[in-house]
Amino acid sequence: MQRLGFIGLGNMGGHMARNLLSRGVQLVVYDVDKSKLETLQSQNASSSSLKVAENPAEVAANCNEIVTMLPNSAHVRSVFMDKFGILDTLKAGSLCLDCSTIDQSVSIFMAECVADRGCTFVDAPVSGGVLGAKDGTLTFMVGGNEDAFNRARPILALMGKNTVHCGKVGSGQATKICNNMLLSVQMIALAEALNLGVKMGLDPKMLTSVINSSSGRCWSSDTYNPCPGVLPNTPASSNYNGGFGCKLMAKDLGLAQNSSTQFKPKFADKDFTVVYKMFEGTDQQMA
Amino acid sequence: MQRLGFIGLGNMGGHMARNLLSRGVQLVVYDVDKSKLETLQSQNASSSSLKVAENPAEVAANCNEIVTMLPNSAHVRSVFMDKFGILDTLKAGSLCLDCSTIDQSVSIFMAECVADRGCTFVDAPVSGGVLGAKDGTLTFMVGGNEDAFNRARPILALMGKNTVHCGKVGSGQATKICNNMLLSVQMIALAEALNLGVKMGLDPKMLTSVINSSSGRCWSSDTYNPCPGVLPNTPASSNYNGGFGCKLMAKDLGLAQNSSTQFKPKFADKDFTVVYKMFEGTDQQMA
Amino acid sequence: MQRLGFIGLGNMGGHMARNLLSRGVQLVVYDVDKSKLETLQSQNASSSSLKVAENPAEVAANCNEIVTMLPNSAHVRSVFMDKFGILDTLKAGSLCLDCSTIDQSVSIFMAECVADRGCTFVDAPVSGGVLGAKDGTLTFMVGGNEDAFNRARPILALMGKNTVHCGKVGSGQATKICNNMLLSVQMIALAEALNLGVKMGLDPKMLTSVINSSSGRCWSSDTYNPCPGVLPNTPASSNYNGGFGCKLMAKDLGLAQNSSTQFKPKFADKDFTVVYKMFEGTDQQMA
Amino acid sequence: MQRLGFIGLGNMGGHMARNLLSRGVQLVVYDVDKSKLETLQSQNASSSSLKVAENPAEVAANCNEIVTMLPNSAHVRSVFMDKFGILDTLKAGSLCLDCSTIDQSVSIFMAECVADRGCTFVDAPVSGGVLGAKDGTLTFMVGGNEDAFNRARPILALMGKNTVHCGKVGSGQATKICNNMLLSVQMIALAEALNLGVKMGLDPKMLTSVINSSSGRCWSSDTYNPCPGVLPNTPASSNYNGGFGCKLMAKDLGLAQNSSTQFKPKFADKDFTVVYKMFEGTDQQMA
Repeated sequence: MQRLGFIGLGNMGGHMARNLLSRGVQLVVYDVDKSKLETLQSQNASSSSLKVAENPAEVAANCNEIVTMLPNSAHVRSVFMDKFGILDTLKAGSLCLDCSTIDQSVSIFMAECVADRGCTFVDAPVSGGVLGAKDGTLTFMVGGNEDAFNRARPILALMGKNTVHCGKVGSGQATKICNNMLLSVQMIALAEALNLGVKMGLDPKMLTSVINSSSGRCWSSDTYNPCPGVLPNTPASSNYNGGFGCKLMAKDLGLAQNSSTQFKPKFADKDFTVVYKMFEGTDQQMA
Repeated sequence: MQRLGFIGLGNMGGHMARNLLSRGVQLVVYDVDKSKLETLQSQNASSSSLKVAENPAEVAANCNEIVTMLPNSAHVRSVFMDKFGILDTLKAGSLCLDCSTIDQSVSIFMAECVADRGCTFVDAPVSGGVLGAKDGTLTFMVGGNEDAFNRARPILALMGKNTVHCGKVGSGQATKICNNMLLSVQMIALAEALNLGVKMGLDPKMLTSVINSSSGRCWSSDTYNPCPGVLPNTPASSNYNGGFGCKLMAKDLGLAQNSSTQFKPKFADKDFTVVYKMFEGTDQQMA
Repeated sequence: MQRLGFIGLGNMGGHMARNLLSRGVQLVVYDVDKSKLETLQSQNASSSSLKVAENPAEVAANCNEIVTMLPNSAHVRSVFMDKFGILDTLKAGSLCLDCSTIDQSVSIFMAECVADRGCTFVDAPVSGGVLGAKDGTLTFMVGGNEDAFNRARPILALMGKNTVHCGKVGSGQATKICNNMLLSVQMIALAEALNLGVKMGLDPKMLTSVINSSSGRCWSSDTYNPCPGVLPNTPASSNYNGGFGCKLMAKDLGLAQNSSTQFKPKFADKDFTVVYKMFEGTDQQMA
Repeated sequence: MQRLGFIGLGNMGGHMARNLLSRGVQLVVYDVDKSKLETLQSQNASSSSLKVAENPAEVAANCNEIVTMLPNSAHVRSVFMDKFGILDTLKAGSLCLDCSTIDQSVSIFMAECVADRGCTFVDAPVSGGVLGAKDGTLTFMVGGNEDAFNRARPILALMGKNTVHCGKVGSGQATKICNNMLLSVQMIALAEALNLGVKMGLDPKMLTSVINSSSGRCWSSDTYNPCPGVLPNTPASSNYNGGFGCKLMAKDLGLAQNSSTQFKPKFADKDFTVVYKMFEGTDQQMA
């Protein structure tokens, strides 16, 4: 069996690569930050299982399957399309599995570029965070056709516990940002409701307990409560350290905003005062 | 054992009274709408178990425990304080259980008026809706002292399955509106997220399924999904009929707004431009 | 000429009554707080011009035109409808000018009650605040028919500088809350924008100056700026004292919310999950 | 006098370049879309005043002052930093005037790159839209030091009527997005208020007129009203055609979001549940 390519050894990718190695997969890896490569090498007993490439093109030249785990859309574009990028050397029939959380439109564009070379691209963003990456319990939300999904699944299964087929290319991104957009609003609403309750004289543990057995129940209330002391082992109970940083959530909300502005083509070119029609309830007819 | 008083035989109260009768409790009832009284009488085989009063004062004169289930704060004030109201004839040592969802400040004021007559008041708003009232599966959120709660519990248990002690008088109202405020925001956010997903090409059943096993999971997504066809037996799947009307939710949000404006006394009298300090993050220091 | 009735001598009404007296109008006044009546009497040199009534009914019995300026809907209902209220003694052909800011639905209901006695009601809420009341520079937003407006105008002109005919009864209330709802959102958005600018390194005076000559220009930015030091003589420049209290703005927003929930009758009874259709853009068709 | 460089001949830049040419300025121009270059050449009688370059590097090699007007951050990065970009050939002492509306952080980074070559960069985004570009009535919001501003001003004055010095590099971007963020919220709030008024029975012209003489007055209400028929010559009165497209406003709101997430460094790495502290009013102390 051929080596698997892996590009992007950051907070998430480092753990994912280590899980692959620990399960016996041989890798060709690359990261723009040399220290990440050295760290991975120093942690890895068997030197034969890990090969370090000079650039993404070298990874693509040596592998039929390449996993990418990068911080944003610009990095993905760059790793695929820059000089010495993946597209320079990608072999026909290869599979690209991009686990980055990026703009759906970029995933779709990358898939087209990859298809032009007779290869297949799936978007497979994850949920589960750094802890899930470390423990190998990530959920992958996969966009691509049936064949691509079936080829990607066994690879992803080595790094996570759930692999969901969300639909055609780009559907993984769409699914993830819809979930995270929802999560962020729930968390804000819960934070406001708990604070209102406390100001009205309620004990936040009692209030949480009622919410959890009532119609306000949600993951934010029963698993990841934002009020210090209500649940043990949450970031809220250790001064909001660890967990999923505000900056990362803000990034995902930015992706949701980008996406939400790309799906009403006619409407998009109307003057912005057309919001009047939305309140009138007649925007749909116009667009 | 003395008869129990029951005032307010509307969509909720009618079912609650029927449950009490069916469990052998003898009632003295009153409703401002005579047809409600006639309906209850016609449904009740044993005429001896049901006595109809001319006004709230007659209920209070004949009972030591009185349940009220009324549509809003103004009705509660009126039933207690108007001529021929409960306070006209309330006997020392009586217990008033108000199951209405009303302003916390009105509950607290009623409790003071009732205490002046040597009696006890608990606020005990419900969750579970008309179906919960009919099936006797309501949850009661109770505000009052320990003794009052212990005296109220067996009565409430005849009409519901959960009785939670939320704290001092007014805490039942506070708990309920915090939950419903949270619920309404979750539902709106979920509706927006599902619509965004559909516009991005996702199947709403698949998206709901991912959300339900992820961090966006909530009662709105897994039990009361707003997208037609995603879950059977929801209002969404029968043209939004039945269920919890927009008007009722709007009422509860109005109560939440009222409450949220009553807990920053010094701040409340500052000019409204002080919102500048909130964004600066220095409002707390001022207030 | 007959005396004018005036009920409600609070922060606003006290100044309005003084302006009427100072312009030679003879009054019959009432306030539930006796000290307000004493204050007005002590300030008024000519005892013959001011007569104090025992209750609203006595005002109505002695006047053909009655101004009311009360804090909320409940007070207006009570002053008109309670025992010894205006309706007890209202003479056919009288004019009731209610300057209170209250629920539109209550204005409309009061107008019906007044019409049943062969009298006329206009709603005439004000803008301009306590300062406008003191200086006689209020703006009155008047709802009522053409004849009623023409009869009310000269009276209102003695207490303000603008009198606008907004449409049928209730239109004065509608106009005022639409303006104040808009104002509150503008102020919040401006507070956020100025704070964002400051965090990005801008001088708030420079930023305000650009906004004022650009598309973000508004009364909040050019007349009532919320950032301390940007404009002189604003509440923001004196520690947010004086001005229009948060509590009063919250009251007006509560009125706006009440109103906004009363104008989609069919929709109102649908389950609250129908919000899904709003995001879909198909709510109009359903309702 | 040396020729002025001009890169980006789109909807805005095309008009700006034409205004420069019509005022006798000689240009070296470039656009990635060859048809834009041909259009400009065909419109320009005097061939000697217009020279077309092969790429941004050729513009920089031939000019001491270079104006850029590009659609987004990625294009600005690319025009400056790609192979054959401005930085390839920029001569010491040159001035770069970037009129694009982009991320403040990108403006600041470009300024550093330009400074490394002994040159000066100002950000100078505009307001006034396509019409302002055509008529030469744009407002430029300029970020840069005093000397840079003084050097940029006469050039900008040939394309607009106002040139405002907003502060150090990046301040132009900050000022523009603060204004546009404010504008968008005002417009949405106005659209909602006018719709609410109409549903309550008001005439939108009357309501607008009251708002315009009251505390809700704003550019959106008195100059660019979103309700069809209220003001002539607005996009709202011609089916929302022309004007400032929703897509462009969405872009600016995206920039505002990006910026707002970059100014609380410590806070940014806390778990996102820290929003609880914001409602508590204690986030400032933490960050």
